[in-house]
Amino acid sequence: MSTLEVRGFTEEQEALVVKSWNAMKKNSGELALKFFLKIFEIAPSAQKMFSFLKDSQVPLEKNPKLKTHALSVFVMTCESAVQLRKAGKVTVRESTLKKLGASHLKNGVVDEHFEVTKFALLETIKEAVPEIWSPAMKDAWGEAYDQLVGAIKSEMKPSS
Amino acid sequence: MSTLEVRGFTEEQEALVVKSWNAMKKNSGELALKFFLKIFEIAPSAQKMFSFLKDSQVPLEKNPKLKTHALSVFVMTCESAVQLRKAGKVTVRESTLKKLGASHLKNGVVDEHFEVTKFALLETIKEAVPEIWSPAMKDAWGEAYDQLVGAIKSEMKPSS
Repeated sequence: MSTLEVRGFTEEQEALVVKSWNAMKKNSGELALKFFLKIFEIAPSAQKMFSFLKDSQVPLEKNPKLKTHALSVFVMTCESAVQLRKAGKVTVRESTLKKLGASHLKNGVVDEHFEVTKFALLETIKEAVPEIWSPAMKDAWGEAYDQLVGAIKSEMKPSS
Repeated sequence: MSTLEVRGFTEEQEALVVKSWNAMKKNSGELALKFFLKIFEIAPSAQKMFSFLKDSQVPLEKNPKLKTHALSVFVMTCESAVQLRKAGKVTVRESTLKKLGASHLKNGVVDEHFEVTKFALLETIKEAVPEIWSPAMKDAWGEAYDQLVGAIKSEMKPSS
């Protein structure tokens, strides 16, 4: 039996991610929306990257398309973190990853956007599970997020 | 006697800004550093815009040049907010404003950077004066900050 080596993602980090995700799962919808509202609180201009927000008259927190989008991003991010160690890599489907790479490239996403999103994600989780939150848990989620971003960035290449 | 009209900056907003600045002044150095550490917590890659951070081996929170820089930015921002209504405009010296415009342009500062800085500023003030913090105070500082940014942006034009 081979041991899967994932760069910098330990058994302890996996346990911390699993524990907090289990505590958050049942509130995914609510937390996902908070996550995105936090992104837009920090960087309002990021809204222009989302076509479904452009012509909408509905307040952000009531926008059904934003809710759906936020939920899929939040669940994908958390599931990829939970499976990171066992799978030995980021487990977003290959086709999904290619689409993510292309859409992020098209929308002009740069490092700063990924960073703001990371900050918003960590804040959202911290507020969701304050009683088990710790610097080690923050590091674990940060590392998992960075690896997901790394996988997306690797697909952010202009088609030649 | 003419009444100076400042776009969207009321007497009440001025009072809220003055009150909080008076409470923060004596801790300017410490708060200014917290403000910048928060910017870098949210967007670590923004560090590369500061030449004095590039080759530094000193941890951020001990970097004397960062402390000096942060203090001057924080004080300028707060003083400009405090004087906004009386002066009827952003009161950064003309020559300073031109320099600020040129340096922000040169460093590739875009909307998202100004937004992250705004968020970090408001968080810093909120944590500095929690007992008097309110949504109205947040709006007042936000408006003053936006007007300062507007003045800087008006000078961010490539020299023709």
